[in-house]
Amino acid sequence: MGNTDYVYPSTNVECAHRVAIPPSQPLSKSLKSSLKETFFPDDPLRQFKNQAPSRKFILALQYFLPILEWAPRYTFEFFKADLISGITIASLAIPQGISYAKLANLPPILGLYSSFVPPLVYAMMGSSRDLAVGTVAVASLLIASMLGNEVNATENPKLYLHLAFTATFFAGVFQAALGFLRLGFIVDFLSHATIVGFMAGAATVVCLQQLKGILGLEHFTHGTDLVSVMRSVFSQTHMWRWESGVLGCCFLFFLLLTRYLSLRRPKFFWLSAMAPLTSVILGSLLVYLTHAEKHGVQVIMQLVLICHFIQIGHLKKGLNPPSLTDLAFGSQYLTLAIKTGIVTGVIALAEGIAVGRSFAMFKNYHIDGNKEMIAFGMMNIAGSCTSCYLTTGPFSRSAVNFNAGCKTAVSNIVMATAVMITLLFLTPLFHYTPLVVLSSIIISAMLGLIDYEAAIHLWKIDKFDFIVCLSAYAGVVFGSVEIGLVVAVALSLLRVLLFVARPRTFVLGNIPNSMIYRSVDQYPTANSVPGILILEINAPIYFANSSYLRERISRWIYEEEDKLKSSGETSLQYVVLDMGGVGSIDTSGISMLEEVKKNVDRRGLKLVLANPGSEVMKKLDKSKFIETIGQEWIYLTVGEAVGACNFLLHTYKPNPVAVEPEAHDNNV
Amino acid sequence: MGNTDYVYPSTNVECAHRVAIPPSQPLSKSLKSSLKETFFPDDPLRQFKNQAPSRKFILALQYFLPILEWAPRYTFEFFKADLISGITIASLAIPQGISYAKLANLPPILGLYSSFVPPLVYAMMGSSRDLAVGTVAVASLLIASMLGNEVNATENPKLYLHLAFTATFFAGVFQAALGFLRLGFIVDFLSHATIVGFMAGAATVVCLQQLKGILGLEHFTHGTDLVSVMRSVFSQTHMWRWESGVLGCCFLFFLLLTRYLSLRRPKFFWLSAMAPLTSVILGSLLVYLTHAEKHGVQVIMQLVLICHFIQIGHLKKGLNPPSLTDLAFGSQYLTLAIKTGIVTGVIALAEGIAVGRSFAMFKNYHIDGNKEMIAFGMMNIAGSCTSCYLTTGPFSRSAVNFNAGCKTAVSNIVMATAVMITLLFLTPLFHYTPLVVLSSIIISAMLGLIDYEAAIHLWKIDKFDFIVCLSAYAGVVFGSVEIGLVVAVALSLLRVLLFVARPRTFVLGNIPNSMIYRSVDQYPTANSVPGILILEINAPIYFANSSYLRERISRWIYEEEDKLKSSGETSLQYVVLDMGGVGSIDTSGISMLEEVKKNVDRRGLKLVLANPGSEVMKKLDKSKFIETIGQEWIYLTVGEAVGACNFLLHTYKPNPVAVEPEAHDNNV
Repeated sequence: MGNTDYVYPSTNVECAHRVAIPPSQPLSKSLKSSLKETFFPDDPLRQFKNQAPSRKFILALQYFLPILEWAPRYTFEFFKADLISGITIASLAIPQGISYAKLANLPPILGLYSSFVPPLVYAMMGSSRDLAVGTVAVASLLIASMLGNEVNATENPKLYLHLAFTATFFAGVFQAALGFLRLGFIVDFLSHATIVGFMAGAATVVCLQQLKGILGLEHFTHGTDLVSVMRSVFSQTHMWRWESGVLGCCFLFFLLLTRYLSLRRPKFFWLSAMAPLTSVILGSLLVYLTHAEKHGVQVIMQLVLICHFIQIGHLKKGLNPPSLTDLAFGSQYLTLAIKTGIVTGVIALAEGIAVGRSFAMFKNYHIDGNKEMIAFGMMNIAGSCTSCYLTTGPFSRSAVNFNAGCKTAVSNIVMATAVMITLLFLTPLFHYTPLVVLSSIIISAMLGLIDYEAAIHLWKIDKFDFIVCLSAYAGVVFGSVEIGLVVAVALSLLRVLLFVARPRTFVLGNIPNSMIYRSVDQYPTANSVPGILILEINAPIYFANSSYLRERISRWIYEEEDKLKSSGETSLQYVVLDMGGVGSIDTSGISMLEEVKKNVDRRGLKLVLANPGSEVMKKLDKSKFIETIGQEWIYLTVGEAVGACNFLLHTYKPNPVAVEPEAHDNNV
Repeated sequence: MGNTDYVYPSTNVECAHRVAIPPSQPLSKSLKSSLKETFFPDDPLRQFKNQAPSRKFILALQYFLPILEWAPRYTFEFFKADLISGITIASLAIPQGISYAKLANLPPILGLYSSFVPPLVYAMMGSSRDLAVGTVAVASLLIASMLGNEVNATENPKLYLHLAFTATFFAGVFQAALGFLRLGFIVDFLSHATIVGFMAGAATVVCLQQLKGILGLEHFTHGTDLVSVMRSVFSQTHMWRWESGVLGCCFLFFLLLTRYLSLRRPKFFWLSAMAPLTSVILGSLLVYLTHAEKHGVQVIMQLVLICHFIQIGHLKKGLNPPSLTDLAFGSQYLTLAIKTGIVTGVIALAEGIAVGRSFAMFKNYHIDGNKEMIAFGMMNIAGSCTSCYLTTGPFSRSAVNFNAGCKTAVSNIVMATAVMITLLFLTPLFHYTPLVVLSSIIISAMLGLIDYEAAIHLWKIDKFDFIVCLSAYAGVVFGSVEIGLVVAVALSLLRVLLFVARPRTFVLGNIPNSMIYRSVDQYPTANSVPGILILEINAPIYFANSSYLRERISRWIYEEEDKLKSSGETSLQYVVLDMGGVGSIDTSGISMLEEVKKNVDRRGLKLVLANPGSEVMKKLDKSKFIETIGQEWIYLTVGEAVGACNFLLHTYKPNPVAVEPEAHDNNV
């Protein structure tokens, strides 16, 4: 293009700066730094710097067992607070544990076992002070639906139980592996909107499942979607039991009332915390006194008897029996167990970490996601060997723990002790617990998870997030839990891809009395500069958008030319691309720029770049595009670029048809 | 925070501007504009504006049949050029057609049929002036490998043939549908790097398949990967035919020599264009005269006889027989045909459009991707009803067409006519064509597709693109064509996701003697401002990166505090976030900003935003974050933000531990 002997135009303009090409780094160094950013963004090794080896060992031990860090500072004041909150959550843990185990089609006692060993492990390894460990409804439901697809829990309870242990084991391995491999960011792909929709959907599905208990039905669909459940419920109206229904509605009313009261007056939090245990005791007493189990009210004992031939299936006295030998590694259903483990593991992790983070934010301390994952993983691996199934940090229980004033993870130890005492001495009491009470407890807990206010908030702020949330909800309610998750994650990713595939481009104008150039859409006072089209690209230029950007830039150019032609103003002479927002560029993007340059040249215009970042400058340099366009046509700011263009425009009145720089070579 | 009654600090600083909150638009309008940007970025309806209805009709007709546009301007000069180039490409089309049909395990005559009807359709509907239509090696190989997985072409040739037609039909329907639905951008997801690697891999695989023909083997593996082919070749060394090998090497040498000569001297392009036909004629004559077909040299006739019971399988005289009734819509293999059609359709489309665009760029005219897709789709639908299989615009043939000086798509019509004459009168000549010659023709064409220079270029400019390219190549060569594609596309998408999940953040410094702030990594002369940490975020803030950004920002802050503490400088007081590169934000991103604000407040620092774009301002406004941070802490440029902070820093020497604005309220 003969630009080489062209005088650098910006020398004539005040305060022009060169755009630096960053010094090239050896491949190994840039690789190391990008790996560090990807896997160690929180720099966990910082505290190990400049420490003696013995200190390093203690720090490493404290890293994996945070209890070693805070135990020396533990005081009696703390213990009093933890004792109260521990007993409070135990009173919630026992009925919830039984209910959720039922939801997972597992023997109810597993819910109690799962509130003993895992909290102890977490108390040693976890870094949250407020998380209360236990089973959760959504993961329980997922286990039932995923395992239940291939193995019937009623017909083959032993295999089903072993698969549940195996799935828990793999969930733990997967969680710990994510933590060790520093892949915790996978959980980030479950966006807030996805979780809101997914939780609400799962809560709806769980409530629907409780219709079985409330109505006292004996046969029920294995499907979890709305359509199958409704068909199942209304096809057997003659089987509905009014005794069960009335009892269920009464307890539900009682539970919701206490919840409402404690929401209105936070100091009555213990009301809603004690309500489930009170319901269980009241319900059991009622059944024991009236012999309602003979009049259509199902009780736990009957359920347990179905699988009495598995020794541990019975609510027998005793502590978590070892179950390492029950892990079904040789089974033909191993892949099913692994799949279930991974899916439920991710869900449980997402809930547990989100809950831990929320409360840490309230109390202003920090939670390390990867460390938490290792703690969750270890807790589930230990759990799977001691007759527990999948545990995490449920929101409801942790909220009660927080409200009861817990100080450290000792509240988990207190809860575990209370559960142990129950396991050792009080299990017979639960024989007469009516199922309908458990159903009421589940429903009242679930209703709190349907966060319609969050959904309204999403709608107001971000329509796309609302669509993601809604599709997660609809996917879970009308399809299955997995469908809901996959659809929501796919939509969220689609949004990211669409952002890159269809980046916004803006026309910039001059903010009056300044050298600042901003989008004329956002700043209506910004004035366009005659003869110069300034475009801002606000996304990385990748293969996915290079064709689009080529089209879009040429459309901006011809639209501008049409506009100028019809208004009879100065014809277009320069196209300035503001590259400040272009974070990265690949080879397709560079080809696109080369094509844009050719296109602009053909129209007799001049392409000018402003403010390319270091990543972009590196690539432009390597690909020799800087030589093609000419280093003198790359400016540090849009202001300087426009200044230089304006200087040329007004010094040499160019031929309006074509501004070939060669034409001016002799004049300069 | 008590900010409300705080005096707007920047009033004390020169030229401060307010950041505008863009006027809110009705949902329908913003939806319409984003749909337009997604599906109609090239604004195809622009020319229809302000036209009379009759003119609109003609324009619409011209839109779908571009021949109506250029035919009136067609001159005799053009025809002379098109005649020469048409005859040239016909001489290449005939042997290539036969070879590629063999590659697809289809009767050779289908290759000739496919060079008759589809070029005629494309000449009417296509918008490229240089594209020469025909079958391509990669798609042919894909058809053979995908259909061959389930139906054996030798044992069940009739079904196989019908499935090939059906797949072609669905490829056409899919291509046309993509065009009509304006989904052409799907092709963009095949990046340049993917295509380079994929093409080279496919070329390697095709060359490996030719070992059968060159060595005169009768049995050969059905696998396409390197390992199976090598095992198959070396397990039957005793079956190698030296006559065939020598003949093949001679012809290959001849073809490569002519290609080398025409690459060295572009005016000898006809040498390489005529070489394949010359080889076919020479080879056939040789076989006819020496009766080599009885001495181990396989000829086309023998192959054809295998499927002589299909009427059209024989190289009989005549033109494309109708095959509409052969489309196997009712077959149990329908899904196989649809799958094959979609995969091969996308590949063919990607190649055809890339080729069309490349030559259009040389001659400075424009190609509309969606229109081209409709043309390709129609051409394949028409082809599938007239005994053709999948066609597109092959690179080799189009390059010859371009070099021969074609002016319009009339060269395709000339080629079709020449092929028709061959079909009607000259087919018997091909009975004696030795297969080994066809193999040589394929190998020499394929070697040109292995673009190792492009791969080296990728390595130099962009390591990640090189990895994508290499994995596409390795996937095709060691796995299968589909594996290579899927791996390469997945890696490319992963890169986009990683860009968003791990965005770059930079510390900015002041460029001496200016109000400009730039990354200190890129501009080593930029000076940091005492007491103020300026961070630039250069990516949209989405769920996928909000956790990361929270961690990263807090790491920047404590690193800066550590640095200042050890050097004893002014302690940190302000954190300025440059949001200029943040193109979009979702609800997770807003939560992240709220957490960062809390974190910064807790450390006794002040959070300041600079230059949020319109999209971001809208969301911040709706979510009330502007109120949380205070409108007075949002500045138009980093320079103004720093100016205001500096003013406050130097006017009121603040308590170094905490700068709570409340402390100053009375002083102001």
